[in-house]
Parts: sequence; C-alpha cells; structure tokens
Amino acid sequence: MAPLSGFPELLPGQKMVEAQIVDGLRRTFELHGFAPIETRAVEPIERLTGGAEIDKEIYAVRRLADDEGSEPALGLHFDLTVPFARYVLENAGKVEFPFRRYQIQKVWRGERPQSGRYREFTQADIDIVAKDALAFHHDVEVARVMAEALAGLPVGPFHLQINNRKLLQGFLLGIGAPSPPAAMRAIDKLDKLPPEVVGDMLTAAGLTLAGADAFLQLATIESRDDGFITQVRDLGVTHELLDEGLAELVAVLGGCRNLNSDRITVEVALRIARGLDYYTGTVFETRLAGYEALGSICSGGRYDLLASDGRTTYPGVGISLGLSRLLVPLFADGTLTASRSVPSTVLVALTDDDSRDVSTSVAQALRDRGIATEVAPSADKYGKQIRFAQRRGIPYVWFPADGADAGHQVKDIRSGDQVPADADTWLPPAVDLSPEVVTIPKTAE
Amino acid sequence: MAPLSGFPELLPGQKMVEAQIVDGLRRTFELHGFAPIETRAVEPIERLTGGAEIDKEIYAVRRLADDEGSEPALGLHFDLTVPFARYVLENAGKVEFPFRRYQIQKVWRGERPQSGRYREFTQADIDIVAKDALAFHHDVEVARVMAEALAGLPVGPFHLQINNRKLLQGFLLGIGAPSPPAAMRAIDKLDKLPPEVVGDMLTAAGLTLAGADAFLQLATIESRDDGFITQVRDLGVTHELLDEGLAELVAVLGGCRNLNSDRITVEVALRIARGLDYYTGTVFETRLAGYEALGSICSGGRYDLLASDGRTTYPGVGISLGLSRLLVPLFADGTLTASRSVPSTVLVALTDDDSRDVSTSVAQALRDRGIATEVAPSADKYGKQIRFAQRRGIPYVWFPADGADAGHQVKDIRSGDQVPADADTWLPPAVDLSPEVVTIPKTAE
Repeated sequence: MAPLSGFPELLPGQKMVEAQIVDGLRRTFELHGFAPIETRAVEPIERLTGGAEIDKEIYAVRRLADDEGSEPALGLHFDLTVPFARYVLENAGKVEFPFRRYQIQKVWRGERPQSGRYREFTQADIDIVAKDALAFHHDVEVARVMAEALAGLPVGPFHLQINNRKLLQGFLLGIGAPSPPAAMRAIDKLDKLPPEVVGDMLTAAGLTLAGADAFLQLATIESRDDGFITQVRDLGVTHELLDEGLAELVAVLGGCRNLNSDRITVEVALRIARGLDYYTGTVFETRLAGYEALGSICSGGRYDLLASDGRTTYPGVGISLGLSRLLVPLFADGTLTASRSVPSTVLVALTDDDSRDVSTSVAQALRDRGIATEVAPSADKYGKQIRFAQRRGIPYVWFPADGADAGHQVKDIRSGDQVPADADTWLPPAVDLSPEVVTIPKTAE
Repeated sequence: MAPLSGFPELLPGQKMVEAQIVDGLRRTFELHGFAPIETRAVEPIERLTGGAEIDKEIYAVRRLADDEGSEPALGLHFDLTVPFARYVLENAGKVEFPFRRYQIQKVWRGERPQSGRYREFTQADIDIVAKDALAFHHDVEVARVMAEALAGLPVGPFHLQINNRKLLQGFLLGIGAPSPPAAMRAIDKLDKLPPEVVGDMLTAAGLTLAGADAFLQLATIESRDDGFITQVRDLGVTHELLDEGLAELVAVLGGCRNLNSDRITVEVALRIARGLDYYTGTVFETRLAGYEALGSICSGGRYDLLASDGRTTYPGVGISLGLSRLLVPLFADGTLTASRSVPSTVLVALTDDDSRDVSTSVAQALRDRGIATEVAPSADKYGKQIRFAQRRGIPYVWFPADGADAGHQVKDIRSGDQVPADADTWLPPAVDLSPEVVTIPKTAE
C-alpha cells in the first residue's frame, strides 16, 4: 500500500521525537504566559478566501450526503491566522486583551506536493492581539519567545532574521517609488531569482534605474548589531517612515541580543520583505543552518489589522513555526531519530505462561514510580525475549525471581550488565526514562 | 459572529484543562508501553466506506481547483480505527508486532448536530495489534490501561462495563437463533428502546418467544464479581462458545479487580453487545455517573480481523475514549473549569514605562526557574495592574524595586499578603505553578 503523496506520516519513534519537541514549545510559550487554543479544522470558504476570488490551494469539505447547496460551503484552514482572527471576533467578549495565544495544529493546502511542501502539515503559532492598539514592545516579545523556543530545539542552529516594512516602505517613498507594495513583492523574490531579474521587476514597478539599484543595495544589508544603521544612512535616502522603521528594528534586535548563542543568532536582514501586504511593521523569517533550501521555516510579523468587526479593530503581532516543514526533512535524511520505537524503559520477561501475574506485578510496581514498562507477550526462551526488547530499543530486561535462583534481576541489554534488583526501589538513570532524541549531523557533501 | 453548529471550540482556560487531561492520558498510555502515532486526516473514500455503499456521515474533501475527478476521492476520517488499520498495513515492515499504539486526534462526522453529538470531535484510542494471532491476555491489558487512565481523570466516577460477544453468540446458538448478528444488533438497542420493542425485534430476527425472553433475561444481568456465572447457568442454555465467552469475561473482570475504586468500577453487563459486527470477543462500554444520557463515552473490543492484506491478517483489541463527548458537556454545564485563563503564575508590574527592562529581567529570572510569568502591558496605576491580573486569575503580582522603597515585593492577590521577595529564589506553592482543574459537582435537579 502506497502512502498518499503530500501527507507525511511519522513512525512511532519519530512521533515521540515530535511530541517531545511540541512539549518543549508548549513549555516555553506557557512560561511566557501564552495560553493554548485550538480552532476547528473548517471555516466558511468565503472567510478563507477573504471574499476575493477562489484560492487554488483550498480544500473544500462537503458532506457526501448533502443535497447540493443546503449547507454553508466549508473548507479546511490553510493557516492558523485566519481561524485565529475569526476566533478573536467570535470570543471578543470572553477573552482578555492583550490576548497571548499559541496554537499547534495541522493545516491543509492543496499544493502540488514537492520537497518541503506538504498538503497536510503542522504549524506552531504564537500571536499577541489587542483591541484598538497594540504596544510596540510586543514585537520584541514575540521575537524573544520564538527565539527562545527555537534555541531549545534539538536541531539547529537557527538564524532568526528581522526586518521592518516601515523601513522598506519609507526607503521606497524616499526614492519616489510610485507603488511600494509592488516593489516589496519584487524584493521578496531575491531568494529565488537573480538580482538582475528582481531589478527588472523593480523598474517594472516604477522605480528608476538608480532607485532600483539603491533598493537592491539596501536588500544586501545584513547585520548582527546596529552597524546596519550607518549602511542604510550611507545610501543617502531620507524619510520619516524610514526613521521609524530603523528605530523599531534597532529595538527588536536589541531586545533579542542576550539570546544569541550557538543555537540561534538573531540578525537584521533587510532583504526580508514577506510577500503578503498585510504586514505593517516588523517582519520575521528563519533559516535552519545547513538546510537553507527549505526556505524560511518560521515567519511572521506585525499586522495592524488582524481582525475587525467593523466597529473595533484588532492589531496583532505573531510568528509561525512550520513544524512539519522543519522536522519531516530531518526525519527523512536520518538527521533526527529516536533511541527507541516504544516509550518502554523496561521489558519484564515471562518465566513461564503461568507466572504472568508475577511479571505484571513487577511491571505495575515500576510504573507506579514512573518507569514505562511492558511485559513480554509470551514465555519464549529468554534469548528470544531479549531480542524482542532489542528490536524496539528497550534498554532493560527484567527477569522475575523464579524460585530457583536468588531473586529478581535486571539487565542493561546494551552493556550486558545484570544486577539483582527490587521493583519497589530500582531506578534507571534519568536519561533512560524517556526515548532520547538522537541527532546525527548531516555528512558533508 | 455565530459559532458553527457541531464544531465545538474551547476557551483558553478550558483548553488548558483539556491539555492537562490529554497529558495525563499520554502519561498512562506510555507507562504501559503504548507508542503514539498520528495519521493524516484524510483517507481514500472507498477505504472509509469499506467498499460498500456511501456512508452518509462522511465529509468528502476536494481541492477547489481540482478538475473533476483528476485526483483520488478523499474523505475526512470518521474514527481512528480505519486509519490505524491502513497505517498498520502500510508500515507492516517497519513496526514491531504486537504493536501497542495510542492515538489522540480529531475525527469528523457529518451527523446532524445534537446534544453530545458533534461534527468534529477528539478521540483517544489505544489498540494492540498483532500479526496472525493476538494472545487473549491483551484483552485484559487494554481494559486495565483504559481503566487506569479513566481513574486518573478529574471527573468521574466511571463504570467500565464488559461483555463478550462469544458469550452472546454462544447463548444465541444454544437457543437455536438463526441469525445471531441480527439478535445482537437488536439487544444493543436496549439503552434506547423498551424491552417489549427489542423483544419484537428479536422474534423478527427469528428467535422463538421463549428464546427472546431468555435472551432479554440474559441482558439484564450485571455483576461486579463472578456471581454472574450462576445467573447465566440458571438460564439453562449450553454451548461451547458460551463457555468460552464466560471464561474470557471472568478473566477480564478478574484482571481488572484491583483497579476498582471510588473513581472507577469495572463490571460485567451482559446487555453490552456493540452494534458493529466486527467485534469478535470482549466488548467494552463506559458510563459517566450522573451523565448516563451521554451514552457510552469509552467503547471498544476485540476484532479478530482489524486489517488484512490478503496474505496476512492483523487481529486487534482496543478501546476508544470520546474525549470531546466527555468534556464538552462538562464545560458547558460548568462542572469543569480552570482556576485561570492564562498559564501565568505571576504578573510582573511596571513601575513606569522606562523601567520595562527591570520588569522583563524579573520575569526572565522567574521563568528560568519554571514559573510562568508575564509583564504588565503598560505602566498603569498599580490598582489597575492588579485588576489586570485578577481578570485572568493570575494569583501573584510582583512589584519591582523602584529605588524609593525596600526592594522587590510579591503579593498574593487572593489573600492580599505581600512579602519581600528575590526573583532568583522565590517560589510559589507547587499548586500555583499551573492552572488548576476545578470541578464543581452538578447540583441535584
């Protein structure tokens, strides 16, 4: 039976690695006061398309038994931002603002499956949304929280790259660009297209040759400190929005400075524009070192109009980690794996079929003290029972007292060490209590 | 904006309660060696319908942009058993058998929304599947594991009710019933229909009047100990399959005996038949005391043919907890709630807008020691900042040293107690570290 293309599924060991990673993300988000929510998988299709023409990527959902058109047209959500905006409007009277939430769920897109692109995948989003006005310091906050979350992952290092759309827009206004959004959409293609082609797109968007050149030069600026300010100033463009963007960018970079480590660097990259017009200030992208071809695995920014019910507007700032996009390639190339395929730390052997109760009691005593344990399914020869544990990566096999020898014994089947043990007191090293996440560096090509 | 009928969504406090419950289930399942898996949301429609006529409950999924019929017809899974069976076949060469797995995911059914029935809901399943043959002791195992999981829930008590289809089928063969499956489907309606009506269905299924009467009498038998054996024998029916079913039922009941507590009772109820023909031995249902109208919130059993690829058959035994079906009504009637709507244990107040760095440092010091903390969004008067914490249920407000007074202070805003504190050493009582699950007994009607 062949898997369905674009719908990756994990083996149990991989799923345990993913679960440990998700638990770590939840922990970090909650330490910063972000509350979890989960939205339904479906939204009205007109909400997904924003009332505009049908988006090609949406999966429509319809009851097989539905008489044509008798129920509202639904679709699977393609991100977690659209459902979050709807949730905020629907529960505006029940949640407190500013509202910090995280949301870790699957999303669906009908894209052509290709490397790094899936039709079903998991995202982990954090957002802060307020009523009417959202203070700028929350931009610094979401950057810090996601940087801390990324730094805690067993893979990396990551480069969290920051920019500010006000800076870009101010620069474009300063050089007299007639349509800043079109120029920002063009510069956003720099990862995929050569600068000459992007330059042609910029002049097509109404920039002069000199203006396109200056904007392309701006986009090359990268920096881990405030040095980028001088580089920008040296381009000789002035505009009040450019100053505002520079100040915000300096503040986000400064707010993240003490997070820099061998796990993560937070840096300015003026190339980052995000194609979507709804970003209005800070924008984020993230690269995984060694996997630059994956593109940005964690992106977001400030949107001053996350939601509106006509009377009240809800500005927000957020960042979304593409969990499947990050993990599935690492599982596929063997970089990321688990030390075992089951949660069990111990396999309790069966002496004979009549003594299942003895083995079950040992297992329960171990579980009562937090040690994941299973009992051998049948009373095969001990060698076969040990191989049963080996195939699953279970590190310990417990041999119950059988009356003939001294008493209970436990064997570390990796080292072969076997010692007498009491099920009410024996403890394995803490590292053996859960499957370990094993990372194997990719070999140089 | 109105919610979508049949698609329940939780408020953040409720979601934190659900997450704590799910974490508890995961913990119990993993202590018993069950590994997690997660399957894609969609399956080919012909797999969902089992090749038979279209099931009315299925949600079909189609890319909006798909040219008619160019891609395989997909549907959202309506349970976790069908996708698990497919996963086993697809990964038969990669997983070890017997394979213990748990799976906690959403499922979708296009049912008419009504009390206790949803179109999107979460299930928590455990199953053990083997190749060719699955030893009977695994029936006892899944019953024990789920009973332990239920006993650990903050709601209850639960009645886990057990029966055995071999017992029913043997009894029916013993009284000469021409079509045991039809009679079992009829007896399964006893929860919803009066005995007279079920009696008519039994005679319509070919039972004699005396046979229908005997079978109805059998169905009234309930017992928490082996006393039911005599009651069955007293009905005077004999058949070898009846004996086999009795023996298995005694074994499952006995294997769960030491789990009985004020949280859960495990009992025999010969009324339980499960309508589905694929159950072949042990069957389970579960009632929540005080919420009997919800029906069974946790059901399952043994199916000797979970999956087959034509050469190999995969027998299984499992049980599925309807998590939404259990929790959503308890959230709705106020029985189950959280002590706060955010994870935060502490709100660090802001002395003035210029000292945000001071408050951020205090917050980070607390987080470094596992205390969920947020910083007040703006430097309002302290009274307003305290009300900000109160509205969210945050128990502590931290006042940073402002130079004018003695130093840092922390206030338990529930008691009003305020004490000097050091962010590198202060600890709240453990109970305040996470939102508490609060249960309020339903008032008698």
